[in-house]
Amino acid sequence: MRVLGIDPGLTRCGVGVVEGAPGRPLSLVSVGVIRTSPDDDIALRLLGIEEGINAIMDELKPDAVAVERVFAQHNVSTVMGTAQAAGIAMVAAARRGLPVAMHTPSEAKAAITGNGRADKAQVTAMVTRLLRLDAAPKPADAADALALAICHVWRGGAQSRLAAARLNAARPNGRTRI
Amino acid sequence: MRVLGIDPGLTRCGVGVVEGAPGRPLSLVSVGVIRTSPDDDIALRLLGIEEGINAIMDELKPDAVAVERVFAQHNVSTVMGTAQAAGIAMVAAARRGLPVAMHTPSEAKAAITGNGRADKAQVTAMVTRLLRLDAAPKPADAADALALAICHVWRGGAQSRLAAARLNAARPNGRTRI
Repeated sequence: MRVLGIDPGLTRCGVGVVEGAPGRPLSLVSVGVIRTSPDDDIALRLLGIEEGINAIMDELKPDAVAVERVFAQHNVSTVMGTAQAAGIAMVAAARRGLPVAMHTPSEAKAAITGNGRADKAQVTAMVTRLLRLDAAPKPADAADALALAICHVWRGGAQSRLAAARLNAARPNGRTRI
Repeated sequence: MRVLGIDPGLTRCGVGVVEGAPGRPLSLVSVGVIRTSPDDDIALRLLGIEEGINAIMDELKPDAVAVERVFAQHNVSTVMGTAQAAGIAMVAAARRGLPVAMHTPSEAKAAITGNGRADKAQVTAMVTRLLRLDAAPKPADAADALALAICHVWRGGAQSRLAAARLNAARPNGRTRI
């Protein structure tokens, strides 16, 4: 399963692609940041983010997209642009028929470190270790995008296993179809 | 000048196209609402809004787009979806190289009725009168989209006249180029 994680933002939009399956080693496919200038018009900045995300989806062909869920109560001054960048990412995925999942920052942190309130250094350290990288991915937005993608590989897997368990419970002698 | 006004929203996104110039009668080109179902996934809903806006832009070829400015402090529960719909509209315009302007609800109300705190009934009444319509446009989101488009025709015109006046002031014997 190849997952594109997106940490939405207007000035820096983190994008990371990870390949893996629950219980198997993960591998890094690509990581980076789409940047737009605060001097540009908001419409042009959002277009730049769309073009960057389109290019990654066309080139790396992810099977699913995980976007960080944005909350209205955080950072009121930047939340509108962040929400809009997240919306652009969702539409780009939907246009290709790719499933989109939203994970909160705490869900991603809990999945990666076991602690939903882990700090950035801890998240980056675990992303580096799980992907067996020689150096920590930078900037933080890039590491966050990878954390989201890893979270999705694992949670997606867990959800599939739960669904499979429910199916098995319903049909004791049946085979799992998932 | 043909202006597409957009009152962004996830459940109902008002779209209205108006043709006019400052000091000339305005005319209605098209008005409607793009609807998406609250039962659908957010990514699919945003895609539906994008497709609706693309269809209008392709068919009616506006010269400019006016989008209602969304404020973070209003209706926290719906503001994220509204901001995302506005972002989708801005990107659709930017992709075509169309200029995008944002106007606040009070700017639109003040332009249409002379009162930035006018109620919906007053705005609808003035939109109906200014466009010489037989009946009021419904629902309110459609009337709001038309109000935004009219506001843009007039404000855009006023801004052009100001720019022209500045040009004239700089070159007393010159002709206005705008």
